[in-house]
Amino acid sequence: MTKNTKVNAGILIIGNEILSGRTQDTNTSTLATWLNSIGVKVEEVRVIPDIEKTIIETLNTLRASYNYVFTTGGIGPTHDDITAESVSKAFGLKYQIHKEAFKILETYYKPGEFNEGRQKMVWMPENANLILNPTSGAPGFNVENVFCLPGVPSILKSMLGGLTNSIVGGEPILSLTISLRTVESEIADSLTKVQNDNQDVEIGSYPFFQAGKLGVSIVIRSENQIKIDNCNSQILKFVNEKKIEVVDR
Amino acid sequence: MTKNTKVNAGILIIGNEILSGRTQDTNTSTLATWLNSIGVKVEEVRVIPDIEKTIIETLNTLRASYNYVFTTGGIGPTHDDITAESVSKAFGLKYQIHKEAFKILETYYKPGEFNEGRQKMVWMPENANLILNPTSGAPGFNVENVFCLPGVPSILKSMLGGLTNSIVGGEPILSLTISLRTVESEIADSLTKVQNDNQDVEIGSYPFFQAGKLGVSIVIRSENQIKIDNCNSQILKFVNEKKIEVVDR
Repeated sequence: MTKNTKVNAGILIIGNEILSGRTQDTNTSTLATWLNSIGVKVEEVRVIPDIEKTIIETLNTLRASYNYVFTTGGIGPTHDDITAESVSKAFGLKYQIHKEAFKILETYYKPGEFNEGRQKMVWMPENANLILNPTSGAPGFNVENVFCLPGVPSILKSMLGGLTNSIVGGEPILSLTISLRTVESEIADSLTKVQNDNQDVEIGSYPFFQAGKLGVSIVIRSENQIKIDNCNSQILKFVNEKKIEVVDR
Repeated sequence: MTKNTKVNAGILIIGNEILSGRTQDTNTSTLATWLNSIGVKVEEVRVIPDIEKTIIETLNTLRASYNYVFTTGGIGPTHDDITAESVSKAFGLKYQIHKEAFKILETYYKPGEFNEGRQKMVWMPENANLILNPTSGAPGFNVENVFCLPGVPSILKSMLGGLTNSIVGGEPILSLTISLRTVESEIADSLTKVQNDNQDVEIGSYPFFQAGKLGVSIVIRSENQIKIDNCNSQILKFVNEKKIEVVDR
């Protein structure tokens, strides 16, 4: 892929434990922050259960819609880990032992410890590219524009560094946050005017509570620093006029 | 809706701040835990940006697919709060001032404080049912099977109590967790056998790290306590045979 100004991604979180509320997903935030930093904008996240048909259909929808798709979860050794087989079926590829992954885990484990359960983790779509795992050995994998990562947040995080060269991002998405001691309704009209005058810049308004006080963070996002600075000036102008305090956050 | 054994829901998280990684979503976990407790199973979560067309299309897909849909975010007073207008369009309803909501906020604010910005929060789809907000006044709303809640987690949480009577759940989804001092690959085969023998029970396996030690939590979920107990016995049987320690977690 040649360098493009707009590169986007979808995230597919696979796991009943997120849908039941038992586990708080943090991988979306980790992936989105990292992707933003390399110029990839996340357009959509879906959380779905460990059901093969759902995984196949959702993955096929997302991979046709976005430049990149990142999946998390379902690549471990137990019966509920069905991501690799489902991805194989989504691409119409054979689900088979990946020789390089087999060698990695054969070396990683002590003699005799690379048992049948662990061997399940080297079954992947044919010709998948491996995503190395510096934490616990078992690699993730990549097929075309789809990157399959584990669900355990610390392991996922440790694998992103090795992925950076595989992802061709666009212009980095820059952002600036202005935090104010005010409430949204005090600034809504003025902020709408700034947004209307800067339609290609994304301006978000987010109330917060800090040390028992209300505030609002305004977030300006764009690939263009000059446009961000222009919005910033226009916002600080009405903030000064309204005598609103700017706070650290 | 009559009492049904299977009642499901989709969750629609609306907000650029989640997709950019700036904000960690916690509303999914809050909603899913609450819904489970009243017998509603969350089948899917989608996170989408503040774009009207995307909100309309996604909402129309989800509300046709699930018994209930819960949206979070986008119902405040600023320009990026477009949920109420988008929901109106998704249902083909007028977007207009809700008289009851107007009265609530007129009373809630001090004289002169119910300004134009705040008045935006009483614009809703015609004939929407209000969802009362004990924290900050501005109500959410409900149209048919769609319930629209704010994005601020503390406010959202405070509104769920008042909603319980509006949701007709099925049998509560019960769960039991067994935490073990082991790794997944040690129990994968035995656990697969238990799952195969109990196909209508959901058995999940989740590795964890606690105080520097590895462990696995097995979660058994079903509407039927006897089925859960049966699985529990079968799992504890192989756990004993393998001399694996059961731990608190």
